[in-house]
Amino acid sequence: MDKSFSFKLKATDNKARRGEVSCAHGTIQTPAFMPVGTAATVKAIKTRDVKDSGAEIILGNVYHLMLRPTAELIEKLGGLHKFMNWDKPILTDSGGFQVMSLSKIRKISDEGVEFSSHLDGSKYFVTPERSIEIQHKLGSDITMIFDECVQFGASYEESKKAMDRSLAWAQRSRDAFQKRAGYGIFGIVQGGVFSDLRKISSEELIKIGFDGYAIGGLAVGEGQQVMFEVLDYATDFLPTTHPRYLMGVGKPSDIIGAVARGIDMFDCVIPTRSGRTGQAFTFNGAVNIRNAKHREDSRPLEKNCACYACKNHSRAYLHHLVKSQEILGSMLMSEHNIFFYQNLMSEIRKSIAEKRFSQFAENFLAQELQNEPEENF
Amino acid sequence: MDKSFSFKLKATDNKARRGEVSCAHGTIQTPAFMPVGTAATVKAIKTRDVKDSGAEIILGNVYHLMLRPTAELIEKLGGLHKFMNWDKPILTDSGGFQVMSLSKIRKISDEGVEFSSHLDGSKYFVTPERSIEIQHKLGSDITMIFDECVQFGASYEESKKAMDRSLAWAQRSRDAFQKRAGYGIFGIVQGGVFSDLRKISSEELIKIGFDGYAIGGLAVGEGQQVMFEVLDYATDFLPTTHPRYLMGVGKPSDIIGAVARGIDMFDCVIPTRSGRTGQAFTFNGAVNIRNAKHREDSRPLEKNCACYACKNHSRAYLHHLVKSQEILGSMLMSEHNIFFYQNLMSEIRKSIAEKRFSQFAENFLAQELQNEPEENF
Repeated sequence: MDKSFSFKLKATDNKARRGEVSCAHGTIQTPAFMPVGTAATVKAIKTRDVKDSGAEIILGNVYHLMLRPTAELIEKLGGLHKFMNWDKPILTDSGGFQVMSLSKIRKISDEGVEFSSHLDGSKYFVTPERSIEIQHKLGSDITMIFDECVQFGASYEESKKAMDRSLAWAQRSRDAFQKRAGYGIFGIVQGGVFSDLRKISSEELIKIGFDGYAIGGLAVGEGQQVMFEVLDYATDFLPTTHPRYLMGVGKPSDIIGAVARGIDMFDCVIPTRSGRTGQAFTFNGAVNIRNAKHREDSRPLEKNCACYACKNHSRAYLHHLVKSQEILGSMLMSEHNIFFYQNLMSEIRKSIAEKRFSQFAENFLAQELQNEPEENF
Repeated sequence: MDKSFSFKLKATDNKARRGEVSCAHGTIQTPAFMPVGTAATVKAIKTRDVKDSGAEIILGNVYHLMLRPTAELIEKLGGLHKFMNWDKPILTDSGGFQVMSLSKIRKISDEGVEFSSHLDGSKYFVTPERSIEIQHKLGSDITMIFDECVQFGASYEESKKAMDRSLAWAQRSRDAFQKRAGYGIFGIVQGGVFSDLRKISSEELIKIGFDGYAIGGLAVGEGQQVMFEVLDYATDFLPTTHPRYLMGVGKPSDIIGAVARGIDMFDCVIPTRSGRTGQAFTFNGAVNIRNAKHREDSRPLEKNCACYACKNHSRAYLHHLVKSQEILGSMLMSEHNIFFYQNLMSEIRKSIAEKRFSQFAENFLAQELQNEPEENF
């Protein structure tokens, strides 16, 4: 087996792309959705069941894992794959985003970021080199560069400053990355909502040269319309020969709109977080299982869904579990949602290969709006 | 298939009994442990995995289910088996114990108990007839009579008064029970720690006639030694031809000691509750997975255990999950514990059949004390 990191474009339908990423622990059919396994677990789901959902890659968070149990311990125990018993590909984010959103920042300099842990207040200093080292210790198939994220609403000047620093950090991340067969590193395009910055960021990253390109700094509160406006041009700045990853996105309609604009990879906590709060996704729209109308409903969450929850339990039972705050409610709802997301990606891939993606997208969004509109996200 | 409710004594070893209960939804090898499925779920475990543990019967709680989602709704949806998708036998307690321990009692009279729900304060009135009706609606294979439980430390007079009332309620429960092929009703012996009361209670219940006899009012804080002292005589008052159920017990050593004194059936929240707080049971004693010594331990919780957690994950991973308060930690620890309890019962049954139960018990208790003694329960 050729273990080199590669991307193969198998079909296109307008801007939508059907591809395949090959890396150390396997191949990933794209467009792909990566369930988030923040602390070495996709929350409330066994790894066996994550695999059964059809997920071919999951995401781990450098920020959480470096704090607990530490990259050093995971390395000692054989790496993240072995630690959590997941033998398919893993992508790790670099910690840049979480450092900004979760920790108490003490100081950002050109050298790196000094922050206090949200767990116990202890101090850490992360540089691009340290982030790459951590991801190496974890054994990530796909390493992300360490970048500086600005908050939504940042001015042109602030966005440019963070972009420039992120480019310098991208070079340092690239230099620190130890190339091994099958392992790749992705750059992250910054530049906020400013097209000229997105263009410069993309060009400079391409000059450095990465195995894939992520679009960062979106899904931070700007709303779907603004996000799509950025994506309308941002993917055009990227090479067609490499995978494109939209970080932290999103709802089903976000994903469909982003695929239409040429994105290949996604990650988001929405399916698991929503599952824990009683929200389910279906091809007929979102379902709030806490709603009283489900109390006596003996139908499954979704007809023909192959997940354990749908094959074994009624909406009435799920309603009871969630209302009773039973852990099993979180388990079943989360598992359904990751199955749904994988089914959605599978349908997206099929429709692109058959050159009917825009029709699929239109039908999906119409169904979503038609049914239980009050519950849509 | 003969669907009548029956008990067959297959072997004895001193007072220990190896038997088989047959009821509407299947047969139960005894001594048996029933995982507790309070609110129509064995907490944090899928029904499929409960079944895979070898459990042949689970327990449901009338008190919790009558409050939410209500017996009427469960009946409408096809009964408790269908509601929670568990097709093996179910025993329901009558609500007597939970009403006393969880709700705010408003009034106890010869007629019944008036109480306020611990969920929302709403008022309920439960009589023996109502408890039996609820259990009928749930579709329990084994119905328990409605009784009055006294707290540990109750005087002789208090214990006698509650026992007398419980006997009157036993007769009313028996009268209200609708006999159907394969469905049984158990009496509950009361009488506190007083042997003459236990004797009277047993004799009177036998006169009424039940399909099995439970020993109630123990495991309420009296400690193992006092419990064993009561069991030393209490089982002698019961017919050898019927199953004997010790309610709410217990730790592995409690179970072993009770089996030695002639008990056939057990239920307890310990395996699941302990799992959620990071305590695991093994044949080498209890393990507190939060203990720092497990941080780098790549061994499974228990060697040769066939549970999902032991087949797939290390102690180090479980330590990380539990310390991180991840739901998956509760799931894996709970599932291991119910597997362990079923394995324990299986070993107990084998050792009785082979007339070496006392040797098995001695070895088990010695191992438990020898290893990690500070963590024993």
